Amino acid sequence: MRFTSLADMNCSIARTLDVVGEWWTLLIVRDAFRGTRRFDDFQSSLGLARSVLTARLRRLTENGILERRAYQERPVRYEYHLTEKGRALLPVIAAMLKWGDDWVPDQNGPPTVLVHETCGETMHPVLTCPHCEGGVTTSNTHTEPGPGHRPASSAIPSAPAGQ
Amino acid sequence: MRFTSLADMNCSIARTLDVVGEWWTLLIVRDAFRGTRRFDDFQSSLGLARSVLTARLRRLTENGILERRAYQERPVRYEYHLTEKGRALLPVIAAMLKWGDDWVPDQNGPPTVLVHETCGETMHPVLTCPHCEGGVTTSNTHTEPGPGHRPASSAIPSAPAGQ
Repeated sequence: MRFTSLADMNCSIARTLDVVGEWWTLLIVRDAFRGTRRFDDFQSSLGLARSVLTARLRRLTENGILERRAYQERPVRYEYHLTEKGRALLPVIAAMLKWGDDWVPDQNGPPTVLVHETCGETMHPVLTCPHCEGGVTTSNTHTEPGPGHRPASSAIPSAPAGQ
Repeated sequence: MRFTSLADMNCSIARTLDVVGEWWTLLIVRDAFRGTRRFDDFQSSLGLARSVLTARLRRLTENGILERRAYQERPVRYEYHLTEKGRALLPVIAAMLKWGDDWVPDQNGPPTVLVHETCGETMHPVLTCPHCEGGVTTSNTHTEPGPGHRPASSAIPSAPAGQ
């Protein structure tokens, strides 16, 4: 029920959460960014039961975030690769990595660092405006209704259920 | 059970998801970015029962993402304001807004747009390297173990339960 409501909300953040708003989704995507491709490797990273991981990989495949590619014929076995839609989640993952490093840090420092191969530096990406190239922060940014905005009375077709 | 495991994972993304990994958390933070401050306004936006919203605002306050400020004395009533820790979630919210606009779009266009006040343009922020100012994409970025990295055998103390 709940996901129908999220998907129907007049908000791109809500619709994103409808697809990736369960913690395990983004951890599977995280592993895929690190190069994990095979079922057993996802399983050893995430510690999930096989049946649970099978269902989650199927959902990510159905949602077009991962695609299956056979890497062996008899018996057929598949690897899971990020699609363009899946790779487009990098900014979400990178933003969570930085927030975690800053606000819920490990006492020994970041467990994982991002390396920008262009310059070789370890970094957290910063948000920049594509027009003026200036920094984007809460103090210089605001939201406005866009072309797809609907009046508030129809913004949420039904209250999220099961909460 | 599950959240203990996420919090203990040797990964800043997992620890971020431990705090903000339920869809409603980020929708409350979204509303706060838009300027929502009062209980009744959060409720009309999110359509939640009062008891449920009360519990969620309490959790966000306990986690230091929102802070309560009295705006009326008799009876005492509170507004909820984003803390610095909460405002630091802007990149996560902005990344989800862009992904939703791109991959699960509304047929009429974006319901909400971000305006960069520095230049006045409507924009989606781009990820930039703070060292070389070059763009950050999956094809020019990789992860490496950082100073807080622990060997894989201790990376996940226990399998997330209840999944």
